[in-house]
Amino acid sequence: MAGSTYGTLFSITTWGESHGPALGVVIDGCPAGLPLSEADIQKYLDRRKPGQSKYTTKRAESDRAVILSGVFEGRTTGTPISIMIQNADQRSKDYGKIKDCYRPGHADYTFDAKYGFRDYRGGGRSSGRETIGRTAAGAVAARLLSELGVEVTAYTKAIGDICIPSSEYHYNEIMENSLYMPNNAYAAKASEYLEDCIKKLDSSGGIIECVITGIPAGVGEPVFKKLDASLAEAVMSIGAVKGVEIGAGFQAAKASGSTNNDAFGVDGGKVFKETNHSGGILGGISDGSPVILRAAIKPTPSIAKEQKTITSSLENTAISITGRHDPVIVPRAVVVVEAMAALTVLDLMMVNMSTRLSSLKEFYKE
Amino acid sequence: MAGSTYGTLFSITTWGESHGPALGVVIDGCPAGLPLSEADIQKYLDRRKPGQSKYTTKRAESDRAVILSGVFEGRTTGTPISIMIQNADQRSKDYGKIKDCYRPGHADYTFDAKYGFRDYRGGGRSSGRETIGRTAAGAVAARLLSELGVEVTAYTKAIGDICIPSSEYHYNEIMENSLYMPNNAYAAKASEYLEDCIKKLDSSGGIIECVITGIPAGVGEPVFKKLDASLAEAVMSIGAVKGVEIGAGFQAAKASGSTNNDAFGVDGGKVFKETNHSGGILGGISDGSPVILRAAIKPTPSIAKEQKTITSSLENTAISITGRHDPVIVPRAVVVVEAMAALTVLDLMMVNMSTRLSSLKEFYKE
Amino acid sequence: MAGSTYGTLFSITTWGESHGPALGVVIDGCPAGLPLSEADIQKYLDRRKPGQSKYTTKRAESDRAVILSGVFEGRTTGTPISIMIQNADQRSKDYGKIKDCYRPGHADYTFDAKYGFRDYRGGGRSSGRETIGRTAAGAVAARLLSELGVEVTAYTKAIGDICIPSSEYHYNEIMENSLYMPNNAYAAKASEYLEDCIKKLDSSGGIIECVITGIPAGVGEPVFKKLDASLAEAVMSIGAVKGVEIGAGFQAAKASGSTNNDAFGVDGGKVFKETNHSGGILGGISDGSPVILRAAIKPTPSIAKEQKTITSSLENTAISITGRHDPVIVPRAVVVVEAMAALTVLDLMMVNMSTRLSSLKEFYKE
Amino acid sequence: MAGSTYGTLFSITTWGESHGPALGVVIDGCPAGLPLSEADIQKYLDRRKPGQSKYTTKRAESDRAVILSGVFEGRTTGTPISIMIQNADQRSKDYGKIKDCYRPGHADYTFDAKYGFRDYRGGGRSSGRETIGRTAAGAVAARLLSELGVEVTAYTKAIGDICIPSSEYHYNEIMENSLYMPNNAYAAKASEYLEDCIKKLDSSGGIIECVITGIPAGVGEPVFKKLDASLAEAVMSIGAVKGVEIGAGFQAAKASGSTNNDAFGVDGGKVFKETNHSGGILGGISDGSPVILRAAIKPTPSIAKEQKTITSSLENTAISITGRHDPVIVPRAVVVVEAMAALTVLDLMMVNMSTRLSSLKEFYKE
Repeated sequence: MAGSTYGTLFSITTWGESHGPALGVVIDGCPAGLPLSEADIQKYLDRRKPGQSKYTTKRAESDRAVILSGVFEGRTTGTPISIMIQNADQRSKDYGKIKDCYRPGHADYTFDAKYGFRDYRGGGRSSGRETIGRTAAGAVAARLLSELGVEVTAYTKAIGDICIPSSEYHYNEIMENSLYMPNNAYAAKASEYLEDCIKKLDSSGGIIECVITGIPAGVGEPVFKKLDASLAEAVMSIGAVKGVEIGAGFQAAKASGSTNNDAFGVDGGKVFKETNHSGGILGGISDGSPVILRAAIKPTPSIAKEQKTITSSLENTAISITGRHDPVIVPRAVVVVEAMAALTVLDLMMVNMSTRLSSLKEFYKE
Repeated sequence: MAGSTYGTLFSITTWGESHGPALGVVIDGCPAGLPLSEADIQKYLDRRKPGQSKYTTKRAESDRAVILSGVFEGRTTGTPISIMIQNADQRSKDYGKIKDCYRPGHADYTFDAKYGFRDYRGGGRSSGRETIGRTAAGAVAARLLSELGVEVTAYTKAIGDICIPSSEYHYNEIMENSLYMPNNAYAAKASEYLEDCIKKLDSSGGIIECVITGIPAGVGEPVFKKLDASLAEAVMSIGAVKGVEIGAGFQAAKASGSTNNDAFGVDGGKVFKETNHSGGILGGISDGSPVILRAAIKPTPSIAKEQKTITSSLENTAISITGRHDPVIVPRAVVVVEAMAALTVLDLMMVNMSTRLSSLKEFYKE
Repeated sequence: MAGSTYGTLFSITTWGESHGPALGVVIDGCPAGLPLSEADIQKYLDRRKPGQSKYTTKRAESDRAVILSGVFEGRTTGTPISIMIQNADQRSKDYGKIKDCYRPGHADYTFDAKYGFRDYRGGGRSSGRETIGRTAAGAVAARLLSELGVEVTAYTKAIGDICIPSSEYHYNEIMENSLYMPNNAYAAKASEYLEDCIKKLDSSGGIIECVITGIPAGVGEPVFKKLDASLAEAVMSIGAVKGVEIGAGFQAAKASGSTNNDAFGVDGGKVFKETNHSGGILGGISDGSPVILRAAIKPTPSIAKEQKTITSSLENTAISITGRHDPVIVPRAVVVVEAMAALTVLDLMMVNMSTRLSSLKEFYKE
Repeated sequence: MAGSTYGTLFSITTWGESHGPALGVVIDGCPAGLPLSEADIQKYLDRRKPGQSKYTTKRAESDRAVILSGVFEGRTTGTPISIMIQNADQRSKDYGKIKDCYRPGHADYTFDAKYGFRDYRGGGRSSGRETIGRTAAGAVAARLLSELGVEVTAYTKAIGDICIPSSEYHYNEIMENSLYMPNNAYAAKASEYLEDCIKKLDSSGGIIECVITGIPAGVGEPVFKKLDASLAEAVMSIGAVKGVEIGAGFQAAKASGSTNNDAFGVDGGKVFKETNHSGGILGGISDGSPVILRAAIKPTPSIAKEQKTITSSLENTAISITGRHDPVIVPRAVVVVEAMAALTVLDLMMVNMSTRLSSLKEFYKE
């Protein structure tokens, strides 16, 4: 399958460039009967929209989602849902220099190497604006998951070295600060750090964590379509992500079996785990505990500081990237991680429905 | 697609349980004309075979690969290559307890939750023996990649806290110690640590690193089939992997743009990068530098130490897992990581061939 | 994969309902560097547009294609090409009766059975207007194929009993009559027959034939992705098609081996076949001769004549379908068959590029 | 996906050549809990086995199915089912001439054109023996479908010109004659015709019909994965099939809407159709009536009569194909059509389970 389609039964195809007329997504396989409005989608888009805080770009996009098909009288019909977002603000002056220059840390060079040329305007297809389509689709998936009791919540765990220990999470504060951190005090410290980055004409990376509750045990396909493998692909496919871990993640590499294993217990007929180092997944299948993943986000590659680079005619040069650029991608990527997680979990929950002969018999009984 | 198939053009389907009559893999889409023998595959299987050192299980598997189709007069024909490995050693006494008990850190519970019952013998399909099929297929992919100048090399970077800094790598030593570490002195230290784990009836995790050289710039599909996203899925689909990172990985989260960006330069008409924090991938597309990934491997969940758990009839109990179990999975997983990386890179290199109209014209010209 | 996506490397996803705001298609995997304009697409859409002749509906659609992404400075970039066609004419009064009634020969009943409800306006997703997206994508595929010397030509072979024998084909006349028949005299007879159908408040079926020249030998994947199997799926997926045959087709069932086999010969170093009963395909792979397929199109199910049927509340009733309906679907479906054939052939030509190791070596040599 | 895998959720991958050590199939995604034995599979293989009657080859294959994985204690586990059939009889003397010659009507030439060389022994992968894997997998699908009340029945409708009108079908006679015709008298006539073919060193084609009962309304995905489109692909992928039609098929091309439409009626709360020209499918979705398809089978291309052809070094020559060859493929292909139909219907029935939100809620409710 070509690279812009994701998912087996709940399948999405995104399209659009940063400075083309519009971007969008087609969702194919959305179950029929889901109440859905443009407002449901807009809530998600607004969370990744630029201009939310002083750490995000000033570009004045309205990013307004329009549903073009697949919804009739307020409910999904089961046919493809096409969602379009027009590009309102296309300042042409911005991309003079990047037309002939390969920006370090960007995909300018690799797109040229692959395709022979590229739409250089604002990064074209490799722009962060590509994530609009996924986010819109993720909003639909999350809306549906919530009908099944599954909730997906992502937040900023770390900006640079400012990392919130899980013991200090206050989930109610996530929406109270513009960095989407579950602790306002840490968010304040991170803001100071970002101010400093801006002064230094530099940028910062960070870590996003995502928790998914309500997935029953049994979701995920053994071997290649494991729940964790699928989540890793989904989240690593977001532009700036350089690492993904599940549960204890890289800490598990230093652990011993006796501390890393999660003991099972039964209480009142309910199975539980005493700890959750597995991050809710055993053998690639959900174990009924919350699924926990973390994504490492690299610093914004577009910085005002001068950097060495080359031109497209292969001459050495230097570049200072001015214009509208976030000193940190993390806060705007939070909702994108949430979207990709929602899409992945929903698709695997749908695939899981035909796992047992007894389920087929139940479904097709008269 | 059901979960045991991987790849778009170079596609593999694995099958088999730990204690069934055999395991195997079908490779579909292997290009015609590749010289291939069972010995090419056996070399890879021997690296994951148990009984290689005292830190791996004593199970006396011969793990002998037999090619049943797709090779004629020593060359691949382009048709499916079926490879079978018979299970020689099936000691039935081993799985008395695990039949009725859910081992912590294993997939016993989740398989029952998903399918309603399971082949409990030695873990069945969720056993580490499942990786035999991938490894055999990876051997074929690696054999083909070497014809294209692409080399995939994995090794043990860390066992528990014993982690080799990249400045101390001696690649020539990888095959000189039974832990596949690129530094014999660190390997000796890691061996001591593992001895201690065994004494404590416990186990250890570790980190595997994989370097792929020779991939030209341009491989990987933007958006969902990025090279890094595909590698993340591939590697995370290996049973014990809990995290995957590319290039600087989680370190990038703490970095600033000015230090994390890799400056481009040109020398003698050749493009180079001054550093390789990107791990050879920009925007999901190879940039011509070596591709670098790391995988976090959890400690062997089967430990002799007693652990709390539950029975399949949901009663609290305890379990001590005796029998043949590695105190560390890492060394045997090295070749599996290499295999999954090879499969991923080859598939995307094949997909990349139809990227430009000029390539189609060249291919189909008379 | 959900049902609205087609193709492996050259992959399309269509969306849209008959009376929604718009319909469209996203093409993913189109090779970079193809000169492409909206006019290239419009030419195809105009051939399936209603109102072309008195035998096609009077609905005044402009059916104007707009390219929203994937084309930069007149050439495809290799990224998804999104094409949208707005629904200009949405006469709401038309669908009063069909809201509560299941039209015979239509998908009203089966959509309700599947999804629980449906967008009943003009047939919704099951309307013939769904083919707009495929046709637009097929225009792009055909444009690209012509760069490779491959030409796809479809035409009306039969309307009802009026069937043109291949010995009387005049290809130059296809565009000279509104039925797209390769013989103006037969077209005149067919027109008379259709006049009669209209008078009888009835409709007619027919046969479309498609010839594809210029495909080199070797295209198509053995076993399930045979060229003929893929063409059969592609063409049978067009709403009104009830049969597909290749080469001699159903006549082969009555033939003997000695007459049905095509003798090979060599002349001036060129391989040829004395006949082409195989329709250009042997063992699912193109043999270098023209590929020939035929599709049986059922009569338009919407007829003015009264028919017995049921309501959605399962009561017996009768229906006369008035309004804008073609007495024959065939002429408008000609370009849709052409589009589906082009999409299928191009995709398999792209897949075919990685068949041999020598091709990979040639592509990736330095 | 490479060409030897078929199906989305119930997915099969076949492998093996005519004269290699073995052939087989891997079924991935079979629901857990299906009682399954090798005898269930053997029943199907025996129906396509050579040597059943004097019109099928004398090759003494035992064609014995062995299950290597995915079944535990007599029930499917949900993991891949690997089935292997060893090639017992490999008479090497048979393929002297076909090594250097392209047999008319065979895939020798196209395999060479595609891959550069081929396993010429007995046709290699393009041999009719390739269908063993599909047939074995189809047996499992049919076994499962019967648990859901779906029955798939194929039979020979015509041999050459001897065609049984549907009014003269006696289904109970299908297994009473070696041609699998639903009328022993027609079978006797067809036998005489085949005797004549043999005397003339020639062969015959025919038509296979397949009826599937018990599919509830609602199965099949609109647009590209229509039930009829999928059946057409599945059946056309069988080597000798040159045409596929559904319901009225090519007769619909000559019909008028008023006669071809099937009137709906309600009786005792049950929906019925007065006729079944649709062949049980409307808009690509099952309508609750029996699904009916027909496949045109070409005459066996291997005939003893001398034919003109070319050598692989491109010189004109002639060939008489002696040895073990059926004068008609049809009877042995009957079970293969049944297998492909079963695989297709089951896969789409599984995909259909996640069509409605209410089904997801029902499945995942606590």
